[in-house]
Amino acid sequence: MANIFLTPKYICMGEGALGMSKNHMKKLGTKALIVTDPSMIKLNNVRKLTDVLDEIEIDYEIFSDVNCEPTNHMVDAGLTLYRSTGCNFLVGIGGGSPLDTMKAIGAVVGNGGDICEYMGRELTNPMPPNVCIPTTAGTGTEASKASVITNTKSNVKMLLNDPNLMTDLAIVDPEFTLTAPPSVTAATGIDALTHAIEAYISKKSFLLSDTYAVSAIKRIFSNLYEVYINGQNIHARNQMAVASLEAGISFTNSSVTLVHGMSRPIGALFHIPHGLSNAMLLCKCLEFVTPCVVDRLSNLAREIGVYQVGMSDMEAARAFVEEAKKLCKKLNIQTLAEYGIDRNEFFSAIDKMATDALASGSPGNTRIPPTKEDLIGIYKSLWE
Amino acid sequence: MANIFLTPKYICMGEGALGMSKNHMKKLGTKALIVTDPSMIKLNNVRKLTDVLDEIEIDYEIFSDVNCEPTNHMVDAGLTLYRSTGCNFLVGIGGGSPLDTMKAIGAVVGNGGDICEYMGRELTNPMPPNVCIPTTAGTGTEASKASVITNTKSNVKMLLNDPNLMTDLAIVDPEFTLTAPPSVTAATGIDALTHAIEAYISKKSFLLSDTYAVSAIKRIFSNLYEVYINGQNIHARNQMAVASLEAGISFTNSSVTLVHGMSRPIGALFHIPHGLSNAMLLCKCLEFVTPCVVDRLSNLAREIGVYQVGMSDMEAARAFVEEAKKLCKKLNIQTLAEYGIDRNEFFSAIDKMATDALASGSPGNTRIPPTKEDLIGIYKSLWE
Ligand SMILES: NC(=O)c1ccc[n+]([C@@H]2O[C@H](COP(=O)([O-])OP(=O)(O)OC[C@H]3O[C@@H](n4cnc5c(N)ncnc54)[C@H](O)[C@@H]3O)[C@@H](O)[C@H]2O)c1
Ligand SMILES: NC(=O)c1ccc[n+]([C@@H]2O[C@H](COP(=O)([O-])OP(=O)(O)OC[C@H]3O[C@@H](n4cnc5c(N)ncnc54)[C@H](O)[C@@H]3O)[C@@H](O)[C@H]2O)c1
Ligand SMILES: [Fe+2]
Ligand SMILES: [Fe+2]
Repeated sequence: MANIFLTPKYICMGEGALGMSKNHMKKLGTKALIVTDPSMIKLNNVRKLTDVLDEIEIDYEIFSDVNCEPTNHMVDAGLTLYRSTGCNFLVGIGGGSPLDTMKAIGAVVGNGGDICEYMGRELTNPMPPNVCIPTTAGTGTEASKASVITNTKSNVKMLLNDPNLMTDLAIVDPEFTLTAPPSVTAATGIDALTHAIEAYISKKSFLLSDTYAVSAIKRIFSNLYEVYINGQNIHARNQMAVASLEAGISFTNSSVTLVHGMSRPIGALFHIPHGLSNAMLLCKCLEFVTPCVVDRLSNLAREIGVYQVGMSDMEAARAFVEEAKKLCKKLNIQTLAEYGIDRNEFFSAIDKMATDALASGSPGNTRIPPTKEDLIGIYKSLWE
Repeated sequence: MANIFLTPKYICMGEGALGMSKNHMKKLGTKALIVTDPSMIKLNNVRKLTDVLDEIEIDYEIFSDVNCEPTNHMVDAGLTLYRSTGCNFLVGIGGGSPLDTMKAIGAVVGNGGDICEYMGRELTNPMPPNVCIPTTAGTGTEASKASVITNTKSNVKMLLNDPNLMTDLAIVDPEFTLTAPPSVTAATGIDALTHAIEAYISKKSFLLSDTYAVSAIKRIFSNLYEVYINGQNIHARNQMAVASLEAGISFTNSSVTLVHGMSRPIGALFHIPHGLSNAMLLCKCLEFVTPCVVDRLSNLAREIGVYQVGMSDMEAARAFVEEAKKLCKKLNIQTLAEYGIDRNEFFSAIDKMATDALASGSPGNTRIPPTKEDLIGIYKSLWE
């Protein structure tokens, strides 16, 4: 079997990565639309970027009307600013939300029409030159060919997925993640872990996606708790930034599976942050799939050092899942109840969520694809 | 510290990768110059490629006058054919030699002038669209920003090294490597191992180059001997093809060090194949550098499973070097004497080789840079 493996052509990574990418950024265009959110301005992250653009004499406009759930309206507004002010390239800076918005704007700049028509569509043309600067570790959007935009007309989280949505230049500078509060650090870190584990157990995994997935998983188990309790540890932040990038590359070339499939409907209906709803689901889903991926999970147990001599493969696989549970516990991942979701409301949405999850296709990437009944069972188990 | 990390944007890998890249190849141009060597024609590898090009209705010319030591004359001849027949993209198919020639032709198409002026030069413009199809596992040229061309005027192996020499599309299909005879399999496999080890112990290594290096090293220790004795094992050939790609990505982003630095002068003066001269040097150089990279080599011992409980780091590092020696022995790597080199001739060249090696800059990437005397000592030790 052959596989396509796609990455951003240029990645600039490590402390000082922004400064180091000056020369490369200069080549991208003469006027940038910076796509971001209000906290990035408050935290001075946008200022660090504009200082660099000023230094290399590149003009820019700032579009900061993005929040945690990017919608078609935000894409439209950004697009209007891009077009009306003569921008010719794009820079996204922030968590996954501003970066996804930037890519969606880029898709429409390149391909015309209305973003609401883009779900599942193949893109003929590339985005204009563009840069992703993630400030969470994280979604891996800086290395994925995906963008998730909520369509407010149909109330659906549209998944755009096309090689043309891979960025030209990813700037992965851990300094930007230092200000992330523990709750964001935890949720986004588990998002990255979920990407890597799902990519590794997906039926679409292959040798090179595995290289990235395993590396990300090892880094996250060694560093996520540390950045959660000690957000100023730049060394550990750098490890997490690299892990997030690696996890992004792994899932965008392999796939996500059950967790992301089941997480999107929770996000759409209950507005729980993406990383948190993944974290709520991760261990239940892993328990469910263990029997069909014993070999893979037992490998992971060896890689993260929880395999003990004499363990059967099944015992090793379970030891890995236990370790994931322990990590989620240490990160104080809230349950649905703790987050304030109403049990009855959730239960009456389960049927629709299970249908939507299956329809998204992601659960079908599990080595033994689950049924709707299986999904219903997992949704219910979140309240046990 | 920040680092730039560069890869081919598209990699198509695994059995059937050539067929899978049809759609992507169609976008590159309307007429290809195929750069290759006579054995690739004899072995029907070029035929497999032209069948695909015929199918997608892309025109082509074939330039097959490349041998194991690509020179400026070959580049010039290929260039003339490219220009005179209206080609607009390039496909290299073969070992490192045809691929390096293809890239050098591409560099001159994009930047003009004479290839002999390109040593150490920065390239302003990209190559035309281009594809690398390696048939050895190998040089990693399909994923490197380097090309090595012998300048027959000065008798120097020119190293071209520029981000513009990174290919657009690497097609890594293990089927092409099935026909490589054991001696080529062994020498090119040790070349890949050397890339990965040098990238890992180089002072320019960083987190993401390490991910690739470690992965490549593990694959090579598990699969190189198998493909040497059983060249038809497609599974192991695929592991080696991926390892070579990973090793290429690791060294092109980190660097090579002492082995490649000392190997090029041997190649230039005694016309020993690149992989073989590396293999002759690898273990002697590793013994020499062990004291300054104990931590790194002991990690590698753990990764390949030769670390035993209770070993000190130094003992583990030595165990790794021993394992590399064993592998070279099993692959029947020839000594200089066995290859037929005259001892006196070699000794009288040592001073010049040590000077040239140091001048190339590669030995300087060792964590404690060696002196000329050190290099002389290592060259001499090849006769012990
Ligand atoms: N395209 C993809 O491949 C992909 C993959 C996974 C998730 N996503 C999408 O990404 C979005 C989630 O992204 P996210 O989890 O990074 O969160 P986010 O971008 O929505 O940000 C969450 C919150 O954290 C804040 N924040 C971000 N970085 C900060 C920092 N360094 N310091 C302080 N505060 C900071 C933001 O301002 C915001 O309030 C969702 O919309 C999800 O659908 C996309
Ligand atoms: N650009 C880079 O990054 C880089 C790195 C390392 C080496 N190199 C260069 O690459 C060259 C060496 O490349 P190489 O080691 O791949 O060897 P090669 O291309 O010189 O080929 C060696 C021999 O093996 C034969 N061969 C190749 N593939 C075969 C197959 N599948 N079946 C049967 N025979 C096959 C060739 O026809 C040739 O006779 C050197 O010139 C070296 O300088 C470049
Ligand atoms: Fe995610
Ligand atoms: Fe080499």
